[in-house]
Amino acid sequence: MTLRPSHRITQVQSPMIAVVGEMVRRHPGTISLGQGVVHYGSPQAVRDAAAKALADGSAIDRYGLAFGNDALLDAIRAKLVSENGIVVGGDRRVVVTAGSNMGFQSAVLAVGDAGDEIIILSPYYFNHEMAIRIAGCEPVIVATDAEYQPDLAAIAAAISSRTRAIVTISPNNPTGAVYSRESLSATNQLCNERGIYHIHDEAYECFAYSRKHWSPGSSDASKPHTISLFTFSKAFGMAGWRVGYMLIPASLEASIKKIQDTNLICPPMLNQIAATVALSAGSGWYAPRIAEIARVRDLVIEQLRSLGDRIDCPTPQGAFYALARYRSKIAEMSLIERLIAEFGVAVMPGSTFGAPGSLRIAYGALDGKSVAEGMGRLVRGLNALL
Amino acid sequence: MTLRPSHRITQVQSPMIAVVGEMVRRHPGTISLGQGVVHYGSPQAVRDAAAKALADGSAIDRYGLAFGNDALLDAIRAKLVSENGIVVGGDRRVVVTAGSNMGFQSAVLAVGDAGDEIIILSPYYFNHEMAIRIAGCEPVIVATDAEYQPDLAAIAAAISSRTRAIVTISPNNPTGAVYSRESLSATNQLCNERGIYHIHDEAYECFAYSRKHWSPGSSDASKPHTISLFTFSKAFGMAGWRVGYMLIPASLEASIKKIQDTNLICPPMLNQIAATVALSAGSGWYAPRIAEIARVRDLVIEQLRSLGDRIDCPTPQGAFYALARYRSKIAEMSLIERLIAEFGVAVMPGSTFGAPGSLRIAYGALDGKSVAEGMGRLVRGLNALL
Repeated sequence: MTLRPSHRITQVQSPMIAVVGEMVRRHPGTISLGQGVVHYGSPQAVRDAAAKALADGSAIDRYGLAFGNDALLDAIRAKLVSENGIVVGGDRRVVVTAGSNMGFQSAVLAVGDAGDEIIILSPYYFNHEMAIRIAGCEPVIVATDAEYQPDLAAIAAAISSRTRAIVTISPNNPTGAVYSRESLSATNQLCNERGIYHIHDEAYECFAYSRKHWSPGSSDASKPHTISLFTFSKAFGMAGWRVGYMLIPASLEASIKKIQDTNLICPPMLNQIAATVALSAGSGWYAPRIAEIARVRDLVIEQLRSLGDRIDCPTPQGAFYALARYRSKIAEMSLIERLIAEFGVAVMPGSTFGAPGSLRIAYGALDGKSVAEGMGRLVRGLNALL
Repeated sequence: MTLRPSHRITQVQSPMIAVVGEMVRRHPGTISLGQGVVHYGSPQAVRDAAAKALADGSAIDRYGLAFGNDALLDAIRAKLVSENGIVVGGDRRVVVTAGSNMGFQSAVLAVGDAGDEIIILSPYYFNHEMAIRIAGCEPVIVATDAEYQPDLAAIAAAISSRTRAIVTISPNNPTGAVYSRESLSATNQLCNERGIYHIHDEAYECFAYSRKHWSPGSSDASKPHTISLFTFSKAFGMAGWRVGYMLIPASLEASIKKIQDTNLICPPMLNQIAATVALSAGSGWYAPRIAEIARVRDLVIEQLRSLGDRIDCPTPQGAFYALARYRSKIAEMSLIERLIAEFGVAVMPGSTFGAPGSLRIAYGALDGKSVAEGMGRLVRGLNALL
């Protein structure tokens, strides 16, 4: 035998964020429209509460319960009622994770075996595709329509005897699309009829501008098969704290508990206290900050329009992404590199999302002025290079 | 199709800690010799530094690097030199994880495909066996000898064309055995010859009493194939902070990066600052605390001896566990339940470690007086029930 990584891992793409990040570091002064983060940090109340817990000797040094501590679980259940219209009864469970990526990985391991198929919609979130391959399952990729909306007939046609789940993300990373209640209900319905799970990622639930966000877990019919993923990273500016949560059918409780126990044992304790306080700060805290991002979005849309038919970019309705298709034969990574080296602006290559010939523009990480400057550079760069 | 968990997860055992914990909650006043934790909390310097980072606006809200931040990685590399005799050169990498369980899960996913075999020694650490099954791999179980020491000939005989790794734990959970340098070197040698990985868990590296701990990663020959796992949970009393780390061959860097990016993205940022300060506190901080646990171990050994030939328990040399084989036909879970209900003391059933007919006694979580009382109850209980 020879030492070598597993076949499964060899098939997984390398994280592109780090590759582009490295290019950015080599070109100081580059404005990054790359990583999906917001421009603000955590609520002051979160920092205060964490400092207080450290000072008053709160029990943060020992293991807690696998699914999270009661105070946080209670706060999450209250939030799910008031913000998502989801009542967590005895038929469902809330699970706190170290970020919502972890929730997705756990969900896939809990429902899929080697060779099983999981349907993802392209353009897809790269970590979803990666998690499916890491689990030894097969991503089955179904294209969205020209507006990046789900094509239910195509999804239904892609279901085979090995399909275990359909994955949706709304508001969407990387496209900024917000799915209609009708689409998500129809996905629920399809899963119900075919006996498969619906894994719905709503990390960007608070970032919906021109269409209201709807949680598929709020429908009664969704209860046996819908797994919903949430995070504190985006709305609360807490990416570095690594706290997310998932809502699962009670029938998966034992399965997810085995995975959580083996991977994380329990979510970090101080971080759970912080997250509990973030939920108290609530929408009153993040709403004005997200309103600011909504204004930045208008600016991004306007700048993209100035490129005319060099690009084709459906208007983003949510999250803080736009995915622009470009019409040029230039090699994708060469375009990315030249935008950084010659124009001082970084975006993500579409291939990493299964959408070659596109660029993902993330506009959440910078204040309005920096985004304006970055978009100006991008427009100049694309005018010159495409 | 019908909604059901994956086959792989159905084959994974349920975490026994929670089951016994639930019995303990139903019987208030029970002294738990169950969970593997120390009786002390994190260093005051850790709490102070975390509070300071919160107050001074340190960058803890955004994502950091996938493998951890430079300050912590530097501190870990310095510790590996001074405490483990491990020089991390260009041929190896350090990876910070959210606990060392996560490091094990990542290692298995990085080297094993569905149906591949991973050799573990019984009695085994339950989360290792669980992680192997979660990855879709097969645990191949090789018994240790009567003293719970590895049987190299048996390990060699268990290697097949599908074997991808051998797992060792020293100091050992659940047996308290400390493996000799010769055994661990021989395991390195075997892995080298057969082209397989050696995954070595040294979570209890600082808890070695009657035999010195030796890190297999310190041998030059180990570099291409040894994966070493470490944690802050035990020596520093920081289980609730969820910080561990792994040392990997550089040839696995890309593989582990894909997994870390997909599961955790990056280790929690404030927790990394805390861990960095813990390493500064170092052995001067934990040595007297561990000396206290060593005294408790003497007491545990003495109490177990008083049971005579009702039990057979090799003298634990490290960690804070003893694994006692008992001679009785009583059903295992019934023994556990009666010890809790009738004698007010909880221990873990051997079956969960692949060692039916044994009891794991964890003596790290309580001060000497409570352990003495707990051991007294256990001795009375076993005298009555066996």
